[in-house]
Amino acid sequence: MEKFDVHILGCGSALPTLRHSATSQVVNIREKLFMIDCGEGTQVQLRRSRLRFGRLNHIFISHLHGDHCFGLMGLISTFGMLERTADLHIYAHAELEKLLAPQLNYFCKGMTYKVVFHAIDPGEQAVIYDDRSVSVETIPLRHKLPTCGFLFREKPVPNHIIREMIDFYHIPLYLINRIKNGEDYQMEDGTVIPNARLTIPSDPPRTYAYCSDTCYLPRITEQIKGVDLLFHEATFTTSELARAKATLHSTAEQAALIAREAGVKQLMIGHFSARYEDDSLLLKEASAIFPQTILAQENLKIEL
Amino acid sequence: MEKFDVHILGCGSALPTLRHSATSQVVNIREKLFMIDCGEGTQVQLRRSRLRFGRLNHIFISHLHGDHCFGLMGLISTFGMLERTADLHIYAHAELEKLLAPQLNYFCKGMTYKVVFHAIDPGEQAVIYDDRSVSVETIPLRHKLPTCGFLFREKPVPNHIIREMIDFYHIPLYLINRIKNGEDYQMEDGTVIPNARLTIPSDPPRTYAYCSDTCYLPRITEQIKGVDLLFHEATFTTSELARAKATLHSTAEQAALIAREAGVKQLMIGHFSARYEDDSLLLKEASAIFPQTILAQENLKIEL
Repeated sequence: MEKFDVHILGCGSALPTLRHSATSQVVNIREKLFMIDCGEGTQVQLRRSRLRFGRLNHIFISHLHGDHCFGLMGLISTFGMLERTADLHIYAHAELEKLLAPQLNYFCKGMTYKVVFHAIDPGEQAVIYDDRSVSVETIPLRHKLPTCGFLFREKPVPNHIIREMIDFYHIPLYLINRIKNGEDYQMEDGTVIPNARLTIPSDPPRTYAYCSDTCYLPRITEQIKGVDLLFHEATFTTSELARAKATLHSTAEQAALIAREAGVKQLMIGHFSARYEDDSLLLKEASAIFPQTILAQENLKIEL
Repeated sequence: MEKFDVHILGCGSALPTLRHSATSQVVNIREKLFMIDCGEGTQVQLRRSRLRFGRLNHIFISHLHGDHCFGLMGLISTFGMLERTADLHIYAHAELEKLLAPQLNYFCKGMTYKVVFHAIDPGEQAVIYDDRSVSVETIPLRHKLPTCGFLFREKPVPNHIIREMIDFYHIPLYLINRIKNGEDYQMEDGTVIPNARLTIPSDPPRTYAYCSDTCYLPRITEQIKGVDLLFHEATFTTSELARAKATLHSTAEQAALIAREAGVKQLMIGHFSARYEDDSLLLKEASAIFPQTILAQENLKIEL
């Protein structure tokens, strides 16, 4: 199966702790790396992950709170010192480019590569990235600032041909790609060999939804219905519900309710408040509602 | 003895590694904390040190390379979330204020405390901070950008009175402070009791010099002569002398030559290039010239 991994580089919330790094994740789809958020210390966590820096060309920023973007300058600057040449694309609220401009001009003068900003509208559901392996669309969320999640949709992979059947029917080479893509085969005598006899279906395309930071927002369940993995923030337990509401964050229970309503295959919770010495409280609360829940943690890799 | 500790939060160089954090140190003088440089990840290292954030009011930035200042935004922002009220003073090249301004305006709006920038001229030797415990003066260095080190000079502590002698001579209370500060005591019959009979001398004031980043610069030995502890960068071993010259850094040998020439009591080397898996190579090289050399390392505390 083609690679579709999610690497957790950091899953803490606004206040850094010794248990959790600031928010960042890397999605590895067929050896192309996509970063989501880039809190302080991300470049060191990226190094720890042993992922190859050179394969990271796209960074998606959910919103402009420091714990989601203060690691960008260090990462960009380090890539410069490593003499990167490929453009680095950053997808974020338009404001980010203005905020980084003075530092980019000062610290990154004469760098060997370009940083290309793509302004996104976090309030609108839109495809903001698309290649032959994957598309990425925004998931409008509700937080103190304009914020969006990201939905990664793998592109379908062609069916696998059954070599013996291709040989048996003497199917010419030039037709193989069409058959991989689902066409039947018509023999010279007009007999039609259905595609199902010639191929094994490929695995269904996988999906990953990242939703952080946000208050409880049931309308997102429509967009993320049935995803293979949902990352949803769970900053607080229900005992801090009032605080969750006031700060436009979610509780572990609310994350689980979203997962259940959306019928996702697996839920990963993260963005844990610094107040929790033991994240298992959050896991317990979410699992009671949605048993297929796991805790995010630094250096965790989930294979979809 | 009054406290005078140096805490190493990070002692790596430009490229971060898993062995070393970016440059930052905290000098604790009589429970007042002074930070020198603030590379990415400093706030987490500060937390790890268990030093009390509230006692840190002054940050000195040697120069505007990212590995010496990219941690400032995160630190400032976290102090805001912790509802700090005391002003935070930052001493740096004037450019820093301009570089941080857009981010301070955006991320730190409505903070409960003020960040006060003090522009320093790294090219000039000057006292830039002074209180009743300590003074801090700049040490002009030579690097790719305007850069200075910092020399911390403890203020003399009054002598300790010998209680028994005070009682013996019936010295009145109102004279005690003068005697602590070195005055003799004249009895009613005119007899002079020399101060040396009434007090035990306090420990001599201690000094700490921080010199990073810089090329080999013998002229600094005059200013740092005889300091109790010299931190000097030693980015490279002599095998990389050409590279040290080209990048305006020092070798471990050069750091040791400076220490020997200045007659310091102890040398600590740091700012190690990412290329060294084993810093003991650097220690070996420096110790051959200046035996009282130690390696900086994260979470090390040196008591002066």
